[in-house]
Amino acid sequence: MAEPYSQLLKQLIEALKCLPGVGQKSAQRMAFHLLQRNREGAAVLAERLSSAVGKIANCERCRMLTEDAICGLCRSDRRDGRLLCVVEMPADVVAIEQAGIYNGRYFVLMGHLSPIDGIGPQELGLDLLEQVLANGEVGEVVLATSVTVEGDATAHLLAQLARRHGVRASRIAYGVPVGGELEFIDSGTLSRAFTGRHAVEVADEEMG
Amino acid sequence: MAEPYSQLLKQLIEALKCLPGVGQKSAQRMAFHLLQRNREGAAVLAERLSSAVGKIANCERCRMLTEDAICGLCRSDRRDGRLLCVVEMPADVVAIEQAGIYNGRYFVLMGHLSPIDGIGPQELGLDLLEQVLANGEVGEVVLATSVTVEGDATAHLLAQLARRHGVRASRIAYGVPVGGELEFIDSGTLSRAFTGRHAVEVADEEMG
Repeated sequence: MAEPYSQLLKQLIEALKCLPGVGQKSAQRMAFHLLQRNREGAAVLAERLSSAVGKIANCERCRMLTEDAICGLCRSDRRDGRLLCVVEMPADVVAIEQAGIYNGRYFVLMGHLSPIDGIGPQELGLDLLEQVLANGEVGEVVLATSVTVEGDATAHLLAQLARRHGVRASRIAYGVPVGGELEFIDSGTLSRAFTGRHAVEVADEEMG
Repeated sequence: MAEPYSQLLKQLIEALKCLPGVGQKSAQRMAFHLLQRNREGAAVLAERLSSAVGKIANCERCRMLTEDAICGLCRSDRRDGRLLCVVEMPADVVAIEQAGIYNGRYFVLMGHLSPIDGIGPQELGLDLLEQVLANGEVGEVVLATSVTVEGDATAHLLAQLARRHGVRASRIAYGVPVGGELEFIDSGTLSRAFTGRHAVEVADEEMG
């Protein structure tokens, strides 16, 4: 079989496979589509990818992805600074905002505790979270980590941390299906989960 | 609802939607994935997209997508120049090459006749095809355009054009796919299989 692709075409197809859920066939289809029908779109995409990679980092306060030092949600004075919702991923913030049922601020862990992968408190930015809590403005931490073993362990750790700072901790209600990712949950379920949140108890003996 | 995306993030998500089959949710997932997990891949993709858009054009002989003036398949001296397979899309060339059953050259129309969309003989590069046929090397044109009203009309026009140049034209067989069960075949394909039926020869000696 001869190689029907030119060098650059092959490289483009290979590069497209870095997108999640895109294999050889889809990458091929995308490459042909862009080159035949939407070169302008492809050029724009190239430029935006490169400027996003160069400029987007994490918000200094909540770790959300943004090109600003402090993200729009943290800057906004229309948000209730007494509520701090802790989520695992930027996509979770988007899902919650789309449900339109929460008006506090966020803290994005960018993952959950996973010792096997070397993800501990440091990687989740808990030192930064402690600074925010030490500030004194936050009265309740709403734990919206995923309903998985790791997400629950993370929530537990966060509850301990909140308690050390004298801040109430709550966990959004089960309503979110076990194993489900916030990003894909419908707003109704998310809304139920927020109103049904409950206090997280930390035993005195655990606190040493 | 507040806008949870920063400006650049929003622009990146918007740009990703130029990919075929990618809507808001997928674009969002791709953007987050790239920014959180694969910035290097994103940077490579940006660079390759931009160099592909800048350099890849159509082969001067067969219109295949390539950054060279003449593509590898046209340059190869191991291909049989007496056979010319006409297809609609670059992806068709790839599919045929992968089957490994054809050793001639190609001509890529980049579409099919579609007067409503303003696609006529000019847009399909038929003047270029005529030059190739006038060359005298090609002995048979294999028509592999799609089995649609437009694809059939295109094939008919190409057959006329071949005949004007004294070149034989053939159409690849369309019918029930190998391994396909009649029960699950659509009526269009079945209809094609019946009208395209051919006589079954039985040798005299087999008859005893």
